[in-house]
Amino acid sequence: MLKTSGIREKVDVCVVGAGHAGCEAALACARLGLETVIFTVSVDSIALMPCNPNIGGSSKGHLVRELDALGGEMGKNIDKTFIQSKMLNVSKGPAVHSLRAQADKAEYSRAMRKVLENQDHLTIKQAEICELLWEENTNSDDNATKKIVGVKTFTGAIYECRAVVLCTGTYLNARCLCGEAITHTGPNGLMAATHLSASLEEMGIEMRRFKTGTPARMDRRSIDFSKMEEQFGDERVVPFSFSTNPEDVQIDQVSCYLTYTNERTHEIIRANLDRSPIYAGIIEGTGPRYCPSIEDKVVKFAEKERHQVFMEPEGLHTNEMYVGGMSSSLPEDVQLAMYRTVPGLEHCKIVRNAYAIEYDCINSKQLYPTLRFKDVEGLYSGGQLNGSSGYEEAAVQGFMAGVNAAMFLLSREQIILDRSEAYIGVLIDDLVTKENNEPYRMMTSRAEYRLLLRQDNADLRLREKGYQIGLISKEQYQSLLKKKQMIKEEICRMKEHTVGASKENQDFLIRHNSSTLKTGSNLAELVCRPELSYEILSEIDPDRPSLPADVIEQVEIEIKYEGYIERQLRQVEQFKKMERKKIPADIDYDSVPSLRIEARQKLKSFHPMSIGQASRISGVSPADVSVLLVYLEQYNRKDKVE
Amino acid sequence: MLKTSGIREKVDVCVVGAGHAGCEAALACARLGLETVIFTVSVDSIALMPCNPNIGGSSKGHLVRELDALGGEMGKNIDKTFIQSKMLNVSKGPAVHSLRAQADKAEYSRAMRKVLENQDHLTIKQAEICELLWEENTNSDDNATKKIVGVKTFTGAIYECRAVVLCTGTYLNARCLCGEAITHTGPNGLMAATHLSASLEEMGIEMRRFKTGTPARMDRRSIDFSKMEEQFGDERVVPFSFSTNPEDVQIDQVSCYLTYTNERTHEIIRANLDRSPIYAGIIEGTGPRYCPSIEDKVVKFAEKERHQVFMEPEGLHTNEMYVGGMSSSLPEDVQLAMYRTVPGLEHCKIVRNAYAIEYDCINSKQLYPTLRFKDVEGLYSGGQLNGSSGYEEAAVQGFMAGVNAAMFLLSREQIILDRSEAYIGVLIDDLVTKENNEPYRMMTSRAEYRLLLRQDNADLRLREKGYQIGLISKEQYQSLLKKKQMIKEEICRMKEHTVGASKENQDFLIRHNSSTLKTGSNLAELVCRPELSYEILSEIDPDRPSLPADVIEQVEIEIKYEGYIERQLRQVEQFKKMERKKIPADIDYDSVPSLRIEARQKLKSFHPMSIGQASRISGVSPADVSVLLVYLEQYNRKDKVE
Repeated sequence: MLKTSGIREKVDVCVVGAGHAGCEAALACARLGLETVIFTVSVDSIALMPCNPNIGGSSKGHLVRELDALGGEMGKNIDKTFIQSKMLNVSKGPAVHSLRAQADKAEYSRAMRKVLENQDHLTIKQAEICELLWEENTNSDDNATKKIVGVKTFTGAIYECRAVVLCTGTYLNARCLCGEAITHTGPNGLMAATHLSASLEEMGIEMRRFKTGTPARMDRRSIDFSKMEEQFGDERVVPFSFSTNPEDVQIDQVSCYLTYTNERTHEIIRANLDRSPIYAGIIEGTGPRYCPSIEDKVVKFAEKERHQVFMEPEGLHTNEMYVGGMSSSLPEDVQLAMYRTVPGLEHCKIVRNAYAIEYDCINSKQLYPTLRFKDVEGLYSGGQLNGSSGYEEAAVQGFMAGVNAAMFLLSREQIILDRSEAYIGVLIDDLVTKENNEPYRMMTSRAEYRLLLRQDNADLRLREKGYQIGLISKEQYQSLLKKKQMIKEEICRMKEHTVGASKENQDFLIRHNSSTLKTGSNLAELVCRPELSYEILSEIDPDRPSLPADVIEQVEIEIKYEGYIERQLRQVEQFKKMERKKIPADIDYDSVPSLRIEARQKLKSFHPMSIGQASRISGVSPADVSVLLVYLEQYNRKDKVE
Repeated sequence: MLKTSGIREKVDVCVVGAGHAGCEAALACARLGLETVIFTVSVDSIALMPCNPNIGGSSKGHLVRELDALGGEMGKNIDKTFIQSKMLNVSKGPAVHSLRAQADKAEYSRAMRKVLENQDHLTIKQAEICELLWEENTNSDDNATKKIVGVKTFTGAIYECRAVVLCTGTYLNARCLCGEAITHTGPNGLMAATHLSASLEEMGIEMRRFKTGTPARMDRRSIDFSKMEEQFGDERVVPFSFSTNPEDVQIDQVSCYLTYTNERTHEIIRANLDRSPIYAGIIEGTGPRYCPSIEDKVVKFAEKERHQVFMEPEGLHTNEMYVGGMSSSLPEDVQLAMYRTVPGLEHCKIVRNAYAIEYDCINSKQLYPTLRFKDVEGLYSGGQLNGSSGYEEAAVQGFMAGVNAAMFLLSREQIILDRSEAYIGVLIDDLVTKENNEPYRMMTSRAEYRLLLRQDNADLRLREKGYQIGLISKEQYQSLLKKKQMIKEEICRMKEHTVGASKENQDFLIRHNSSTLKTGSNLAELVCRPELSYEILSEIDPDRPSLPADVIEQVEIEIKYEGYIERQLRQVEQFKKMERKKIPADIDYDSVPSLRIEARQKLKSFHPMSIGQASRISGVSPADVSVLLVYLEQYNRKDKVE
């Protein structure tokens, strides 16, 4: 009896990996009351930021706010630990405004770990997961031939469970390259996870090899900032989280610095390309097109005379600076030479070399838009493992995968955000519907309905869904309803409040270079004039109610862009029609007549959930979609008759 | 010209490793004005505490205070980052009082990194050193046949230098064992250093294999502290550093908790010993006798019914708790079962498993007491690599090795502390003079002159030396001289101030259960009475000067223990005589007549620097020492004649 023989525990969910995806997945599951274990190869690397020291940025800021609206943690965590914040693109339309914050990396990681450590129903376990345990699935309603029954650690411990969320990031069979020097480690010299890939392959999961990279970290003392442009944070900081009190984020901020590469930089790179592991063919993985290394930029944009370089502090308590824009896998001597051509970096000292990292990930077309493996009940996947790049992309996927794992266990309906609801929907739909042959990065241009999917209205769009899921409290939800009501009432008032052609009003308009009134107008019409604004109009609108800044922002945007917004809403209606046309899981494409062979193959390979999704698969033509529509109509009619 | 070909830099000193030894070595060299590079496999692991979360403790507290007196950093750093502090053994004599502080591990590491990052002349470089570069030494005055000319990193960078300090800790060819599960990593899953051992062996350095271990870390929320004894910090905290203002360390402290193993714990361990990597013969390395694993304790002290278990917080911002006293390399299921037998741990959850770590270290008899390799000019070695165990043992060696590397480069005399000057001297003399077949741990019982080598007088003993070395400022030195003066004057006053047999004085003595005076006495005599103290005597000594607490402490100890101290000082004089009798580096033991063969072999192998050192080598008998003395007298006379 005293003789023991292996750990065997029973839990609800196992989350594999504790990066940005894993943290969100685990918190979502635990907060929904499920007994959750999160595994990490090192507790010290929870929510690690192994690459850039910022959260948000163009379109990524949207993701973070959407995640926050749904009940995720990333927005709250960066609000606690940022050291500079900036709303990007404010000179452009509100659709592309994006929030970006510089993080204190160590603090970010520590704060997230603290949240995890204190979350009920959540257990942190330092262990490498080496094997997924599964059985044949004899009772599936969606083609899943296997089902998850647990995981096994390197030390042989077995955790029985019905759902697993894989969030392994860049750790699977990782190798790091700095010129000719190769180490078989995960990011920043951490232990790689070298066993799980084989287990996934044994389950029939198709793996691929992607790569990404990071620039050098430099000693702040060796940099001459006087040769660079200082970049300040916003005077008035907007928090990421809709739950953060805006007054709490008005902190003393640090600066970043902007400098540029030049022809000498590019010459050095070109002269040494034969020693680049990418150009020498040593790296097999595919890198991210929209986050290229400096050598890629120099080769692919040969005509460009310079590239931006951002010097960003890694935290308040360290002298290390991140060299944004100059990631590289060139040998360290080439790195040093090229960095030293950049103004301000002439005498730079490199603390950590730039390197590329190659890792195993999955072909994401094996996933449903719920982020579940089509073939395996209970197996969800989020983050860089799905072939994305970026902390924010990882976090939202981890969250959605975690939520859906929880929905499954709670016998509730799976949650899918569509392309008209959220950037999250666009991201996941792109991942599971398109052939992605390189790490996927979010961009505003990928969103068809970006005037609707603004970062400023993420709460209005998604908080109710978060409440339905159970990750937004009743209090938070009621405060959303109150906000919606205030916006509605104020828009109504603006439209109804007429402004006469009084001398006072005409004077006001002349003073603001705005044409005078013929007869009367209303406040809503005036606010649409580019030279006027809600704030300016206060002078001729003395009795307006006192409203919070975020309400005023919505009122103004919704009035100013009313026409465009309505047009996009009509497009969305069209889009939704197609999304609502579901394709049954057991459809036999071979029995659909007149489908082209390519379409048949693609449809069989992707298993789209709706006509909408099918229509976005490359290789499926509009004609194929028509054929499919006709077939489904017959199919459904038959179904009803039987 | 644009084609680059490998980094080649020139510095003064290279320090390999940034643990507790490496940090002290690098700071010492840089502060002495030498251009110093410190290499680490991960910048995030600088000053990492991979095992227990405390600094100091019995005899180790002495080391830290001595280090501080000499100008080291450890004492200052723990003063900044401790969360509980306690002077141990206060019920015993002052020789064994020892300070111990619980650290916030993450803060300790961060604070030390900050000091390193901001130290002039010091560069931090994340890189694995794979090779030492050396040449034949044709110009030696001490038998060194080789000399250091640089180091080479994994990425091929070469740093030319004339001195290297090796502080590789437990990283060399490390492997971690948890039952049958073995990973080839350094502590806590960090990358091991897998190349340097071979380079050292190629240089003819004899390597050995030691092991150590660490207990599990547990989730605080899973522990029932009501079943344990709460352990508080001292009400009045004494800082480690002589430079810290005592007021700055009066903080809110956290508690530790004491519990015990029991017969059930021991039964589980015994029943599963066949699965222990040590008892199954998988571990080849030798472990520390005085810091045994729980399975070792149960086997070696079979008669003990229970062992102490200390639950210690790992920091303020984490729920992880260290299970002091129960390190283990048993499989994790055995670990969990045994831990759960301990009162309060019935439902414990393990965040990180206990594990043993095996690593390469050197046979330290290859070192001079300066911590230089006898055979290699410019090559110094400090810390766990020398076969010691413990953060404090490592730090002081790193410091001494760094100082002597600096002395070498500055063409100044090497610094050796002897056994009568410091625990540091005892530690290093033991390491380089005795056959150590297991990790060496400092203990008060190893010090012959421990009444002199108190933690309270480390500044009086060593600060002047620190000042001579150049690591103690003039200000600090002058404040020492002032303190010495105050002590001297007050002792003098106490001895001269007579106390008459007045009614008032007799009443005072009666009240304190002290025998009344026949005629007169002086304050010094009275303070020697066990029932009286300097503080109590204030009543009959109203005109005493106002003195700092540390001065009063010295006055009291020096008066109370005057007889013992004087006796030890006489012993020290004897000891010093033998230490002063230097043995020339080029002595040919084969030409010393009448030496026993064993002694001859040992002397040739150890190359002692003095008769004193020779006499402590096991296998060298008093008769051999006499023979050697006679020989040296003739040798010196001959030398003078020639």
